[in-house]
Amino acid sequence: MKKEKDDNNYKILKDGTITSVPGFFAGSTNCGLKGSRKRDICIIHTSEASVCSGVFTTNKFQAAPVILDRQKLQNNCGVMAIVVNSGIANACTGKTGMENAIKTAKIASNIMGIDEEKILISSTGVIGAQLPMDKIESGIKKSYAALDPAGGSSAAEAILTTDLIKKEIAIKIDLDEGKEIIIGGIAKGSGMIEPNMATMLAFIGTDAKISKSLLDKALKNANQVSFNSISVDGCQSTNDMVIVMANGSSGIDMDTEKEENYEKFVGGLIFLMKYLAKKIVMDGEGATKFIEIKVSGANDEIQAKTSALKIANSNLFKTAIFGQDLNWGRINAALGASGCEMDPDKIDIYLSEEKIVENGIGINIEKNIAKKLLSKKEIRIAIDLKYGKGTWTVWTSDLSFDYIKINALYHN
Amino acid sequence: MKKEKDDNNYKILKDGTITSVPGFFAGSTNCGLKGSRKRDICIIHTSEASVCSGVFTTNKFQAAPVILDRQKLQNNCGVMAIVVNSGIANACTGKTGMENAIKTAKIASNIMGIDEEKILISSTGVIGAQLPMDKIESGIKKSYAALDPAGGSSAAEAILTTDLIKKEIAIKIDLDEGKEIIIGGIAKGSGMIEPNMATMLAFIGTDAKISKSLLDKALKNANQVSFNSISVDGCQSTNDMVIVMANGSSGIDMDTEKEENYEKFVGGLIFLMKYLAKKIVMDGEGATKFIEIKVSGANDEIQAKTSALKIANSNLFKTAIFGQDLNWGRINAALGASGCEMDPDKIDIYLSEEKIVENGIGINIEKNIAKKLLSKKEIRIAIDLKYGKGTWTVWTSDLSFDYIKINALYHN
Repeated sequence: MKKEKDDNNYKILKDGTITSVPGFFAGSTNCGLKGSRKRDICIIHTSEASVCSGVFTTNKFQAAPVILDRQKLQNNCGVMAIVVNSGIANACTGKTGMENAIKTAKIASNIMGIDEEKILISSTGVIGAQLPMDKIESGIKKSYAALDPAGGSSAAEAILTTDLIKKEIAIKIDLDEGKEIIIGGIAKGSGMIEPNMATMLAFIGTDAKISKSLLDKALKNANQVSFNSISVDGCQSTNDMVIVMANGSSGIDMDTEKEENYEKFVGGLIFLMKYLAKKIVMDGEGATKFIEIKVSGANDEIQAKTSALKIANSNLFKTAIFGQDLNWGRINAALGASGCEMDPDKIDIYLSEEKIVENGIGINIEKNIAKKLLSKKEIRIAIDLKYGKGTWTVWTSDLSFDYIKINALYHN
Repeated sequence: MKKEKDDNNYKILKDGTITSVPGFFAGSTNCGLKGSRKRDICIIHTSEASVCSGVFTTNKFQAAPVILDRQKLQNNCGVMAIVVNSGIANACTGKTGMENAIKTAKIASNIMGIDEEKILISSTGVIGAQLPMDKIESGIKKSYAALDPAGGSSAAEAILTTDLIKKEIAIKIDLDEGKEIIIGGIAKGSGMIEPNMATMLAFIGTDAKISKSLLDKALKNANQVSFNSISVDGCQSTNDMVIVMANGSSGIDMDTEKEENYEKFVGGLIFLMKYLAKKIVMDGEGATKFIEIKVSGANDEIQAKTSALKIANSNLFKTAIFGQDLNWGRINAALGASGCEMDPDKIDIYLSEEKIVENGIGINIEKNIAKKLLSKKEIRIAIDLKYGKGTWTVWTSDLSFDYIKINALYHN
């Protein structure tokens, strides 16, 4: 992964995860939701009620946990726990689904001795199935018993579905006067991944002290350039959420301290969320390539993003990259179909640092060079529309035989 | 293919094609553009200057032939010939590409002795390559020599690229007082297929007499419900066009005769264009299934179409159908992501006549019934949003291993 420009402000912690943040615990277990012995339920817990922000899917079909958490966060209730299950999404489950979502929080409330308003829930997996509440109850009990200040990595495992790898990270941010704060997070997602918004799950903790309004703002900004800038297949889920909990245990207040500190905090949050977002793309269903698409010179940022995503979601482009084929015409065709303002006769396209299209027309580059660049695991495409000042970067994966295999046989 | 309601007004002609229309000739040959011995160039010719309408791709990258033909049709020039080549798209070819497009018409003009303004050109194939003009010239000569009133079917072959089957049809429309007119057409397309507009090539002839303005209107309407209602992969091409030539040889005037006759003409044109559009979907790259998606009860027609296409372009839906998996959650998810107005708790979904989702929630139908319906070659999905009165039907194909194979290795 490319080194971020400003990463001298923060340090990536070895084996970092959400429980690398002081005051955070996690516990997980298998309760039989996935029909395997894999972990499928976890609790993320912080002993101090945290200021909590969330962003959620914009899909009109919203899973019960999404509807419930949204309500709770509006009340700024001071979140102390999140219960997450994988295997069943509790989406498109009607009244029973909502009752089960509420019941899940109640069960956790009874077991943990915490007000149910302070407990969020989250689900991912098959749409349309109801949660087996006896299994959920037993899973919550066992997860609670397993709560551990080093349990983050197991929780990162418990939230996976078709994912092949865990996605977790923690960073330390150095502030002035020797002060420091920590942000840690875990995420899942590998299919049904497209922005608007997160289209996956991510849970992030920090020991920074911060007001709800400032944390909301920070999350919204960070989300735009991270989880809202990735796409695996252009399909948007019903269950997505990104939750950030700030338990304030560092005592360092982002609201009253120097503005510079808040900026460093946001920079760190962006770095961490981009890291997790890119991990999701790398683990995209059937992905053999990680593709970065940067559009510059667009009319504005929105058009830069729209056109970059049009390429990222072009099956023809994605299969060409899988086939290691320099089919730049498919990039042109996607750009031209994006609805964005451009002058086709001005567009330049680069593969890594190699210019492959100049003023809309292909350049004959040496076959060996193209072959070498296309055989890499990481592909970088940059487009300069030479039209305006809008720039945006998105990340996607290629479209391979394995994507079909995974998704054609999902229920089998 | 489902029988159209109103097809007692017209009769499908046996072995019908564009040259089944009186006064139309076609000639084709191989001139070495495709690197095989397959036909790759043809001329469609009508001896009487025809009233001609066209609809073209809305992609901002427009191939040279698209730009040129658009200009010519604005002048209502009386078209007598179309030269079509396959193998090379003459798209993203800059100034040289436009010069070659003009030169192609000039060559045909010299050989055929027809004003170049009366000659349209069309190309399909690889983007970015220049036309080898010596081969084009030799191809035009041979195609002209081969002009034949029974040459339509060979022309239908010459315009193909990755297509596996020819797409051609002719119908006879019975009018009042024993009068009749004929419409015949050929088409190509199997990948890079999404509306906005046709995203493929189709050439249609008729012996009806009709004014330019009325023919424009008829084509625009027919195109919306046919070629603009199909999608194979959501990718829009740079070269698409649908051209209708009315040579008037029947002497039956659609403008001055009974209004009823015009309506029958439009009905016939719609039937013919839908037939060709569906053939394109059936021949979709790697397609194993032909899928009809009908959305009713939407707020309006535009929203019905938008939501139907969102499903048609969902890779997760398409792979599920390939895998014969009743994954209705992916239909819900696509609907919810379409941006269209709906109440998720009201939506019903049908597979053939079987209700599979009621008020947003899945119904447990017998596994054997689902299996039988999903194993069919033709899949019909109907969605009732129960929200408004908008209805639209689109057609698409599934997403299979072979789509990846064809498109990953296109240049190899």
